[in-house]
Amino acid sequence: MNVQIVTVGDEILIGQIIDTNSAWMGQQLNLIGARVVKKTAIADDHHEIIQAINEGFANADIILMTGGLGPTKDDITKKSIADFFGVEMVLDQPTYDRIKAYFVKLGRNVPEEALHTQCLMPTNATLLLNKMGTAPGMWFEKEGKVLVSMPGVPYEMEYLMENEVLPLLKAHFPAKPIAHRTILTVGEGESNIAKRIESFEDSLPANIKLAYLPAMGQVRLRLTGTGDDETELHNLLDVKAKELENLIPEIVFGYGDVLLEQVIGEMLRLRELTLGTAESCTGGYVAHRLTSISGSSEYFQGSIISYSNEIKMKILGVKPETLDQYGAVSEQTVIEMVQGALDALNVDIAIAVSGIAGPGGGTLEKPVGLVWLAIGNRSIIRTQKVQSGRDRLKNIQYSGTMALNLIRQFLQEEYVLTKV
Amino acid sequence: MNVQIVTVGDEILIGQIIDTNSAWMGQQLNLIGARVVKKTAIADDHHEIIQAINEGFANADIILMTGGLGPTKDDITKKSIADFFGVEMVLDQPTYDRIKAYFVKLGRNVPEEALHTQCLMPTNATLLLNKMGTAPGMWFEKEGKVLVSMPGVPYEMEYLMENEVLPLLKAHFPAKPIAHRTILTVGEGESNIAKRIESFEDSLPANIKLAYLPAMGQVRLRLTGTGDDETELHNLLDVKAKELENLIPEIVFGYGDVLLEQVIGEMLRLRELTLGTAESCTGGYVAHRLTSISGSSEYFQGSIISYSNEIKMKILGVKPETLDQYGAVSEQTVIEMVQGALDALNVDIAIAVSGIAGPGGGTLEKPVGLVWLAIGNRSIIRTQKVQSGRDRLKNIQYSGTMALNLIRQFLQEEYVLTKV
Repeated sequence: MNVQIVTVGDEILIGQIIDTNSAWMGQQLNLIGARVVKKTAIADDHHEIIQAINEGFANADIILMTGGLGPTKDDITKKSIADFFGVEMVLDQPTYDRIKAYFVKLGRNVPEEALHTQCLMPTNATLLLNKMGTAPGMWFEKEGKVLVSMPGVPYEMEYLMENEVLPLLKAHFPAKPIAHRTILTVGEGESNIAKRIESFEDSLPANIKLAYLPAMGQVRLRLTGTGDDETELHNLLDVKAKELENLIPEIVFGYGDVLLEQVIGEMLRLRELTLGTAESCTGGYVAHRLTSISGSSEYFQGSIISYSNEIKMKILGVKPETLDQYGAVSEQTVIEMVQGALDALNVDIAIAVSGIAGPGGGTLEKPVGLVWLAIGNRSIIRTQKVQSGRDRLKNIQYSGTMALNLIRQFLQEEYVLTKV
Repeated sequence: MNVQIVTVGDEILIGQIIDTNSAWMGQQLNLIGARVVKKTAIADDHHEIIQAINEGFANADIILMTGGLGPTKDDITKKSIADFFGVEMVLDQPTYDRIKAYFVKLGRNVPEEALHTQCLMPTNATLLLNKMGTAPGMWFEKEGKVLVSMPGVPYEMEYLMENEVLPLLKAHFPAKPIAHRTILTVGEGESNIAKRIESFEDSLPANIKLAYLPAMGQVRLRLTGTGDDETELHNLLDVKAKELENLIPEIVFGYGDVLLEQVIGEMLRLRELTLGTAESCTGGYVAHRLTSISGSSEYFQGSIISYSNEIKMKILGVKPETLDQYGAVSEQTVIEMVQGALDALNVDIAIAVSGIAGPGGGTLEKPVGLVWLAIGNRSIIRTQKVQSGRDRLKNIQYSGTMALNLIRQFLQEEYVLTKV
């Protein structure tokens, strides 16, 4: 199953929009065993679109095209496709009725002319219902090959891919069963992980591949397997995923595409604990990550962002002597920040962050990127020193992720859940 | 000046990396009057690369190629280009010496074989010095057309584009002078702005175009002009930019590519004022935006993230009666949050945010997306009600931008700077 992705739209060419669609499509196609052989982005231009279809059918079995399906006159994908196939355009009554009903429901005037244009479809198109927007997807076949046209709006495209296109492609191009297990890790670099799991990786059967997908402070490990028997394949992947996890248990925080801040939220909820943060260099970033999760008000109580030393002393009760003797970026200060935050915020657990985000403020002893973390409850406080790089925003993000990981570790080790 | 951008790399095709390079390149090329006619992404494959060069030279005057210049064996861009031109590869001694010196300086072992491979260059390449990494850029010419090959690492590519490629392209393809003025606005939608500046837009001379570049809560207005006389063009653009700004003065916050949080920082610095935030639904996001700016510790003191009502009362001194009578998301509550934050954080100005980020927690009277803002000092407090949509993260980001805009307006109107 070879795929060529074609993105239609001037706004992509001039760089007004970053094309995130084709990366998402590449990932999804990869998961069903299809291979993207080429991506192209072209202008809203009749000749270019026809040329791209010719090129795509020469290179690949499937063309997935996005964009140019709107009601304005520069949206000419549909007409170009009809001309490529040499077919007419006819009004599709069900689409017309659906969009009209939508306008009526919203109490808007029905723009008859634009609506009519938008409902003209090439006669050889199989329409794919788009529940997220007005323009349907279109499926075309030619000599065993497939062309799909979808809107360029990301959530409309994603809806159509998940609900219509991917299932149809799997049915149309039967392939060996393929399955995946993704193991999420945090706190250790790709090369270190590779060393720790080297013999596991070398001993993997030929039908299972391992991919490393690194991001800031995190690495996703994805096992992809193919096989003739689906049940057998899933069993094998489960065994291998467990083996892999057992080699690096302390850095695994989840599976699939869950976020670290979601996992922490779930851990806090299960343990019925509340959390707060005391942040200096991260300036609210850790609290922002935690509160991005829906329902976080169940366990997250609040934060003291103590950018100034005055607030560290006044609200968090950090001692002036501590700041004088060790400085704001020190193990002693973050310990006192935790103690202060537990009281000020009245939470079960508090985490504190203080560091030098840069680019200014570094010294030989305390370089830019040095960050002290502390976490604790009313009986125990743990600390961690983190050193990252020179870029301010990356330092904030990296130390934020390390802070979240420290919360995870603390919950896991200090509040062991007895399994039912 | 027509350009085809070619991205080489399997990681782009499988969607492991989102291609931000080609959007950035599109923007930069647009600014010098070059037009991107097509973008393609292809695999690290000898045949594909040669085919892409053939296609690019057929479509465009210039091919800008990124990726595949590393030292590993799947990086085969250089060899493929040499084969396209039918030339040999020879060791470039200056590059070899430069990279070797770099390894020695870092105290690392010199990987002789990989280094040797990386320093082999097609004999017809003009090398472009890459001060951000090891692989140089390469410039090739063929029958008046140009092929440039650059590394795919974003900051290396950006360095080469800005310092080598764009100046060389301007010299190689002399074009009419082109110039731009970008006016940054916040707080009003694209269609409202379009109505307010309609007659200005209609009366623009033919050599000046206006583009709307919207983002969340913000719209950039870019005037692009071409002309024969560069001085005249710049004067005309200055006049038109001023005219435009005078039509919408209260929503303009800056020019070029400055950030709203930078502008606020500069305003606070000039006025020698300090700032703090009291955040509920934004959960630290406003503080995070403000502290993303280097040097923000000069004016930003800290925040109280009062997710729980307990913290609103205990640290910010919001009255229990206020919460009982009006609720946490109310004008009365944000006013008391400002008053409390001024004292707790000991700042000149405080901003407060309380709202329903969603997806849960909405009611008929107070739907998801409703956010109350308040800003004040010790003599005056202003409030603003904001209503955004249904997506949690977008609500946080949108109300965060509105909060920053309220800070800007307050500083501008309550602390008028007398011009020197």
